[in-house]
Amino acid sequence: MDRIAGDLVTEVIETAEALADAAGKVILPYFRQHGLATENKAAGTGFDPVTVADRAAERAMRDLLAQRRPNDAILGEEYGVSAGDSGLTWVLDPIDGTRGFMSGTPTWGVLIAVRDAHGPLYGVIDQPYTQERFCGGLGRAEFAGPHGAGALRTRDTGQLDQAILFTTFPEVGTPEDRDGFERVASQVKLVRYGMDCYAYALLAAGQIDLVIEAGLQTYDIMAPIAVIEAAGGIVTNWEGGPVHDGGRAVAAATPQVHAAALDLLHTKG
Amino acid sequence: MDRIAGDLVTEVIETAEALADAAGKVILPYFRQHGLATENKAAGTGFDPVTVADRAAERAMRDLLAQRRPNDAILGEEYGVSAGDSGLTWVLDPIDGTRGFMSGTPTWGVLIAVRDAHGPLYGVIDQPYTQERFCGGLGRAEFAGPHGAGALRTRDTGQLDQAILFTTFPEVGTPEDRDGFERVASQVKLVRYGMDCYAYALLAAGQIDLVIEAGLQTYDIMAPIAVIEAAGGIVTNWEGGPVHDGGRAVAAATPQVHAAALDLLHTKG
Repeated sequence: MDRIAGDLVTEVIETAEALADAAGKVILPYFRQHGLATENKAAGTGFDPVTVADRAAERAMRDLLAQRRPNDAILGEEYGVSAGDSGLTWVLDPIDGTRGFMSGTPTWGVLIAVRDAHGPLYGVIDQPYTQERFCGGLGRAEFAGPHGAGALRTRDTGQLDQAILFTTFPEVGTPEDRDGFERVASQVKLVRYGMDCYAYALLAAGQIDLVIEAGLQTYDIMAPIAVIEAAGGIVTNWEGGPVHDGGRAVAAATPQVHAAALDLLHTKG
Repeated sequence: MDRIAGDLVTEVIETAEALADAAGKVILPYFRQHGLATENKAAGTGFDPVTVADRAAERAMRDLLAQRRPNDAILGEEYGVSAGDSGLTWVLDPIDGTRGFMSGTPTWGVLIAVRDAHGPLYGVIDQPYTQERFCGGLGRAEFAGPHGAGALRTRDTGQLDQAILFTTFPEVGTPEDRDGFERVASQVKLVRYGMDCYAYALLAAGQIDLVIEAGLQTYDIMAPIAVIEAAGGIVTNWEGGPVHDGGRAVAAATPQVHAAALDLLHTKG
């Protein structure tokens, strides 16, 4: 049985597109501007900048949802939870990858997801500067960018030793998490860093094979799960269970690469 | 005294633009394609993929130079040295950041530089996928991208502890190089990885403050030096001398940040 009705599917997809458009429009004027106001949300405990753009974009998306989907709940990175009674929740991270944003790299993204009680139904990873949008769920798995559009599909490169792995390590995770990550990293063909949520988009687009992260919040991973699974990939926590509520994630292009990564994450060094 | 005459300036700049256009046109059809043919240039010694696109783009640029500037010398990453007697040498890296290219990240670039006996005169860092071009030297310091164009100018964030540092470490350098890098990394506000030559462009554009690299070839750094210095920055080796022939590079937005980084690179741990 479909989890939501057909006419609602269209409305959800169109609303997600409108949210991404609105967020990008608010954020872009702040990107690569000097003197951008930032504050440290977690003073003394780490580096977690929040930009004016982040908050303004979430407000813009919330305003749009109040008009278009007033009975849906909202969980946003910046403004927390707003209750709803439709059974659907919009999960919003207006700027995922704020450190990339502050550095001028087009690797941050607007993450928009819709979930029900079971988990993600639909997700969008949007990069307003490069004008790329990756959408998946509710029967769709699609990409649009400056050089064209097409279907999203993960690739099959075979064994783990042929895989390209992306991560935010060494920036994230506990020392034990780091050890697990390094066991996988030592077995793959290539490890790359610093791509923020853009790595999930590349996985869904069949460019890379594996993303391993730790310390995720639900709004960091909900949209990527929807997009990657719609493209044929697998996203779980390090124990192989659901990760849409956050934690440590393994996103893989194929069951084979996923299983090989899980095995290594579980092996004690 | 100007190092080259005014009419030659125009010709060099126009030729560099034409080379960047030609390279991008050749490369883009290969970017994000599956089954891209690669070979391992340094089998057994590391991971150094060479793509079909890399070679085809250098051939396209060499063909254009044969037509437009037949008396200039060429030094290219893929096809080595071609002699000339004009006193000018074109230094070409058709795809700097081949690992990024293979992973689908728009962080690689076409690097084009013109040098004389003293070092770089003019440089271009071009990213064909995002349609961004960063040019500097011969009186120019300019940027053009999908959301507009403007002047390049490094920023002044003051002390090293306010600096954003980019690097290809941990992928490059000896253990001793790594120690030097880590001493600087421990003092800055933020360290980011994985941006390939895009990091130099961000430095010239006033988005970040410091890039530290090791193991560079002359074609990796010639164009970035021209662009960054034209934008007001400083690029030297770790000893403070010229680095246009390759080696370990420190590129900084201001003299203050540059001096602070050099001090830490020289301090024995």
